[in-house]
Amino acid sequence: MKLTQPPRRIALVTDFGDGPYTGQLRLLLAALAENVPIIPLLSDLVPFRPDLAGFFLPSLMQRMPSATLYLCVVDPGVGGSRNVLAARVGNDWLIGPDNGLLVPCLRGCDSVQVFRVQWRPPALSDSFHGRDLFAPLAAQIVQGDLPDSSPAQIPTLVGSDWPFALAKVCYVDVYGNLISGVRADEVATDRVLRIGHHQVCFARTFCEVPVGTAFWYRNAFGLLEIAVNQGRADRVLKLAAGDDLPL
Amino acid sequence: MKLTQPPRRIALVTDFGDGPYTGQLRLLLAALAENVPIIPLLSDLVPFRPDLAGFFLPSLMQRMPSATLYLCVVDPGVGGSRNVLAARVGNDWLIGPDNGLLVPCLRGCDSVQVFRVQWRPPALSDSFHGRDLFAPLAAQIVQGDLPDSSPAQIPTLVGSDWPFALAKVCYVDVYGNLISGVRADEVATDRVLRIGHHQVCFARTFCEVPVGTAFWYRNAFGLLEIAVNQGRADRVLKLAAGDDLPL
Amino acid sequence: MKLTQPPRRIALVTDFGDGPYTGQLRLLLAALAENVPIIPLLSDLVPFRPDLAGFFLPSLMQRMPSATLYLCVVDPGVGGSRNVLAARVGNDWLIGPDNGLLVPCLRGCDSVQVFRVQWRPPALSDSFHGRDLFAPLAAQIVQGDLPDSSPAQIPTLVGSDWPFALAKVCYVDVYGNLISGVRADEVATDRVLRIGHHQVCFARTFCEVPVGTAFWYRNAFGLLEIAVNQGRADRVLKLAAGDDLPL
Repeated sequence: MKLTQPPRRIALVTDFGDGPYTGQLRLLLAALAENVPIIPLLSDLVPFRPDLAGFFLPSLMQRMPSATLYLCVVDPGVGGSRNVLAARVGNDWLIGPDNGLLVPCLRGCDSVQVFRVQWRPPALSDSFHGRDLFAPLAAQIVQGDLPDSSPAQIPTLVGSDWPFALAKVCYVDVYGNLISGVRADEVATDRVLRIGHHQVCFARTFCEVPVGTAFWYRNAFGLLEIAVNQGRADRVLKLAAGDDLPL
Repeated sequence: MKLTQPPRRIALVTDFGDGPYTGQLRLLLAALAENVPIIPLLSDLVPFRPDLAGFFLPSLMQRMPSATLYLCVVDPGVGGSRNVLAARVGNDWLIGPDNGLLVPCLRGCDSVQVFRVQWRPPALSDSFHGRDLFAPLAAQIVQGDLPDSSPAQIPTLVGSDWPFALAKVCYVDVYGNLISGVRADEVATDRVLRIGHHQVCFARTFCEVPVGTAFWYRNAFGLLEIAVNQGRADRVLKLAAGDDLPL
Repeated sequence: MKLTQPPRRIALVTDFGDGPYTGQLRLLLAALAENVPIIPLLSDLVPFRPDLAGFFLPSLMQRMPSATLYLCVVDPGVGGSRNVLAARVGNDWLIGPDNGLLVPCLRGCDSVQVFRVQWRPPALSDSFHGRDLFAPLAAQIVQGDLPDSSPAQIPTLVGSDWPFALAKVCYVDVYGNLISGVRADEVATDRVLRIGHHQVCFARTFCEVPVGTAFWYRNAFGLLEIAVNQGRADRVLKLAAGDDLPL
């Protein structure tokens, strides 16, 4: 299928870390998609958890430039029989495995087209479809060509029965802040979260609470986040990625 | 203000880590400043400590290509009322918050122009000015335009009363080496540092001391650094970023 | 020496981590080799261990685009008298210290030319030859010029007497998988590895073993790797980089 307005840059969203998997993806794309910027947007998603990544992804894409292709891989089922998806969301594209990872993003948008990708590369390893399948697929899409694919309906995708918010720690950032899968605007600002013996109240910003105090706020992605002013919420509250939040 | 020789590349100097903050900054700049190289120079500065970062920054810029814009953010006061600075240093530019971060660099240079930036973007989150304010400011500067700003004098900046060297561990590198905020040339090479029960002597290079021995030397940035040949000085000497050094 | 087909991109393969060393290398190369993509392929090789890195390198280069220059630095002898090497392997180039790092790669190839590089930059620090020597050397090579060098024979290189496989953990990836320096095709699939009280059997892919079970398999680089389905093999088997494997 020929694309009239292909995306102009590729953002990598993976659990690959900073090691050789992200490295090989970038080096390969530098040759397959010459002159297209390749940007590692997020490489340290929680391994093996497409649900935690999926509820973070729509917020990550906010305020980002349009005409971006998001190459998304959190894929514990690699080497098995899961499908491969490509989706157009406005002027953006997303590609990834059919394991729920893309669903929270696709479900919330008006202008979406979803495809199951039948195309496979001539050589495909069992464990690194990021390099062998998703990278060449991305390169074809930014060059204006979606290879052999068939339209798909969102209700047929894995994860289409997931709830619309995830009251868990989806990501722990470098400061130890706890990013949830719940939009902050859906929680009243007089709500107090009880976590262990802590009572975590709302504040607009870090400056509004004493150093060392835990609070929740609307983070820069629009999500409810729990932080400690100049401290680490993960240590103070003894919470890690995947843990439930009282929301 | 129109700039006759705008910088040609953007270097990121932050405490944002490798996660979504650096990722969003790069993805946004890939669109706002197309064809301008965006290079993450340092993303793991000590969180919340503009002093430790500030005394490392001038050395980091040594031997680097001129016509570089350094986008600097270590900003515990984000969301509060601190000012925003832009400075021309020779052919380089620095932008960052007015919390001392830029002062050790600006103070040591002959050819400096400093500006307080009044310009603000239409949409500004409370916690991520790197993305919402500093990135679009950087994009405008590399395109030759400094938006609404007024000249500032160095003695009026936060941190202008700081000493000229910082006898602390400013950064612990990947090998566990301890980088100080003191220029090595200002310390006599017969100086012995007493740290716990260790006597740390000068050596020119790693090869000159036995494996496992702690020594201090002039590192590749010109700073006094404490290292252990093929070992980790942070563990051997039980020191971390922010700790005092006997200098 | 003038090169008829210089490499078109530079891949960085180092133990420099994500801090200022990789950052300075990239910022410098952005100016010295304008318009040439600079890709950090791998930055977290095991410090001080050119042997572990060397046996991983040939596999890392598989499936990667040709006409790539690999700038390789794991260099505990920096500041000493070790030689500097540049090698053409097919359409690729490798540069690095003469400490064994490049030997497993060079030894296995048909079409190899090796050079000892006599050229030195006007200013050379004692501890950061990546920035001061290898980066400007790489920039010259991608611009079609190999500076002052003389041909060398592989049997005269450090490491030329190393065995052809390394039965050790060469690299622990972000998931805790243990990557060895042994090609998987050289081990029979009925081979059982005894590690502590674990019996580690072959499986083709993660999906074929229960969650939590350790197994060995042919990884995406062609190497024997030990993994735990949705778990961390390094913790389950209590092994770290550099440890021996019963192969």
